[in-house]
Amino acid sequence: MKVSIITVGTELLFGQIINTNAAYLSKQLNLMGFDVMYHFVVGDNAKRLEEKLIDAYQDTNIAILTGGLGPTQDDITKEVVAEYMGAEMYMDERVKSDLIEFFSKRNRRMTDNNLKQTYLPIGCTPFYNATGTAPGFALEKDGKIAICFPGPPREMTWLFENGARQYLEHYADKKMYYKVLRTVGIGESDLETVLLPVIDGQTDPTIATYAKEGECALRIASQRTTIEDAKNAVDELIIDIDRYIGEYIYSYNNKEINDVVVDLLKEKNLKLSSAESATGGMFATTITDIPGSSSVFISSYVTYTPESKINDLGINGEVIQEKGVVSPEVAMDMAIAAINKSGSDIAVSITGYAGPDADEGHSPGEAYIGYVYGDRQGCIAVNTSRSLRDWNRRYFVLMMQKTVYLLLTDKMQ
Amino acid sequence: MKVSIITVGTELLFGQIINTNAAYLSKQLNLMGFDVMYHFVVGDNAKRLEEKLIDAYQDTNIAILTGGLGPTQDDITKEVVAEYMGAEMYMDERVKSDLIEFFSKRNRRMTDNNLKQTYLPIGCTPFYNATGTAPGFALEKDGKIAICFPGPPREMTWLFENGARQYLEHYADKKMYYKVLRTVGIGESDLETVLLPVIDGQTDPTIATYAKEGECALRIASQRTTIEDAKNAVDELIIDIDRYIGEYIYSYNNKEINDVVVDLLKEKNLKLSSAESATGGMFATTITDIPGSSSVFISSYVTYTPESKINDLGINGEVIQEKGVVSPEVAMDMAIAAINKSGSDIAVSITGYAGPDADEGHSPGEAYIGYVYGDRQGCIAVNTSRSLRDWNRRYFVLMMQKTVYLLLTDKMQ
Repeated sequence: MKVSIITVGTELLFGQIINTNAAYLSKQLNLMGFDVMYHFVVGDNAKRLEEKLIDAYQDTNIAILTGGLGPTQDDITKEVVAEYMGAEMYMDERVKSDLIEFFSKRNRRMTDNNLKQTYLPIGCTPFYNATGTAPGFALEKDGKIAICFPGPPREMTWLFENGARQYLEHYADKKMYYKVLRTVGIGESDLETVLLPVIDGQTDPTIATYAKEGECALRIASQRTTIEDAKNAVDELIIDIDRYIGEYIYSYNNKEINDVVVDLLKEKNLKLSSAESATGGMFATTITDIPGSSSVFISSYVTYTPESKINDLGINGEVIQEKGVVSPEVAMDMAIAAINKSGSDIAVSITGYAGPDADEGHSPGEAYIGYVYGDRQGCIAVNTSRSLRDWNRRYFVLMMQKTVYLLLTDKMQ
Repeated sequence: MKVSIITVGTELLFGQIINTNAAYLSKQLNLMGFDVMYHFVVGDNAKRLEEKLIDAYQDTNIAILTGGLGPTQDDITKEVVAEYMGAEMYMDERVKSDLIEFFSKRNRRMTDNNLKQTYLPIGCTPFYNATGTAPGFALEKDGKIAICFPGPPREMTWLFENGARQYLEHYADKKMYYKVLRTVGIGESDLETVLLPVIDGQTDPTIATYAKEGECALRIASQRTTIEDAKNAVDELIIDIDRYIGEYIYSYNNKEINDVVVDLLKEKNLKLSSAESATGGMFATTITDIPGSSSVFISSYVTYTPESKINDLGINGEVIQEKGVVSPEVAMDMAIAAINKSGSDIAVSITGYAGPDADEGHSPGEAYIGYVYGDRQGCIAVNTSRSLRDWNRRYFVLMMQKTVYLLLTDKMQ
């Protein structure tokens, strides 16, 4: 079935925000077996929105709209869609009570314009919103379907997963099944070369590789008439792929490496701690992103100055003087201090230059990762040769996660 | 003058890449005084591309296309545009010599399909590409203008700045100026209500509000014949807006609050430290995101277990026993410990439940933020009443940033 995605919001036409909603929806809809034919972006203008809705329905049956469902005057999506479909509005009591609860819980006064959000088109399928104030909905008429979501990506994705997906399943004429394998330690081009015998002449399942800083994911997808057929085809191919790159795969179900690390720590009943300089707490942030991580993560010592490394971790000032604050020696001593102070079973540390600048004689992207786990300890040198601060910090964190992963799986060289 | 942006590429409809080109072009074109009316995304399909080109020209005079100029079979943009405008092709000698040089420089063999890129529509204005192999161009006929760029963002932006911008200047009839004000502590609907006297009947400058978790941004934009007029109109209105919501505004130039906090610390030559539990290092991460933050940020004590709060921060175990680890008392003691241990001038702390779960008698989203700054110290209770871990953590961090901001600007109640 063919789909158009219409994103409503003048801020997109001003270039103030990027249309991530259209990308997310396209990805999910393709995986469900829909054909996404067009993206449209239109401003908060009723006439132009209606025109694009008409354009969309010229050769697609489903129009998915995001944005313009809020409480303000320029939120017009719901009204335009209802008008086009010839549906009157009704006040939805559940939306109203949710809304009242939403504000009272936050001890905030509910301004009257919020009530605008309690009205929905008669005959629609509401998607009640646990993440915000505006509900989404699906409305069908004469074989044309409109599905509306609020614009904030977090709300849109939540409503897609908790309502819209189930509604749409019914209209998907092909069934798709896919698995994402995540690897670390092998580049995208190497991966493709190694897998050539498997990839070559492969039509279904399809194999797609996605590179992210420092890691590479593999999507194996199959579209068949039944989900079982698709699943079997994917699982068979994965057995084949495993023979070639099994050693690099850390997840067969698209789990992020921080999630896998937390699982391994729980499984082995081990406690982790860290000492961070260049990453400024980002490593600890990724570990504590995982619910229940408090049972395996003790502490991170974010020591961002030489003094704090001395005062908080007891690093020897002379070592910093002689070797430099960004050095294998300091990284090693930070990891040792972290495990001793926290009483954890495993510790990882980092000192480096995130960029854009670095001290004399060093380059941004240079970093040293120290680790201690039982009688194993060591230091890994990293250099991205990039000056992109954000990119470097994310890469550093990934290398710290990888270090812990390799230690916990006895894969560390 | 009205503009449509048409992005060509099936990978966008698959959701494999995000449409950053449309965002970049929209921003630049608006600043030049053009009205961007629509974005279209269409796959690598001649028929559908032509249809969208026709749609675009229905109510815009300029269509800007990106993607589909490359050497491969599915690159069809140039051919469709030339066909639509009734222009024959010619081989551009300069493009050809540039192309030959491009490959010889890189010691790469030039495959014949590359020659496809040397053909341009007769009568076009070529934009020669120093960053890649495919040239861009502008083609005009009967008052309709098509401007084509290659898809790779780096090449598109370079060709826009080195060719297209100058070409377009000639057609810009208005100049736009805008400012984005960022606020914290007031919701979107409240903001609109408070500003109603200013917003009502306001046509130019326009005022638009954007909500993000816990904060809200305000865009004030004006289009006039000269940039000076536009700037004056915006600045005048901001003085007016300031009267109503000045207390909530933390940035008049769209700076993020972590950026503003780092600026304030530098300006006042003060040092910051933090003690984090629920946010797990995320507060420190946002501060150290800012280049040069090492001159104002000392350390964060990420103490994720009761034991680590006792061992690393010297929190009294009995206080944790009596009051609970998530309590104003523990938050306060964490902030005091952070400032004492780090020797910083200002410290902020947090203990709370990020969710999705919470201990008996507590709810996810409940947190306490402690702060110490000179002789001022106190604790702020927060409760999002949400179980969304990610949302809660971001909100907690924002409230910590807000706390520091209010202290540094003497706005803390």
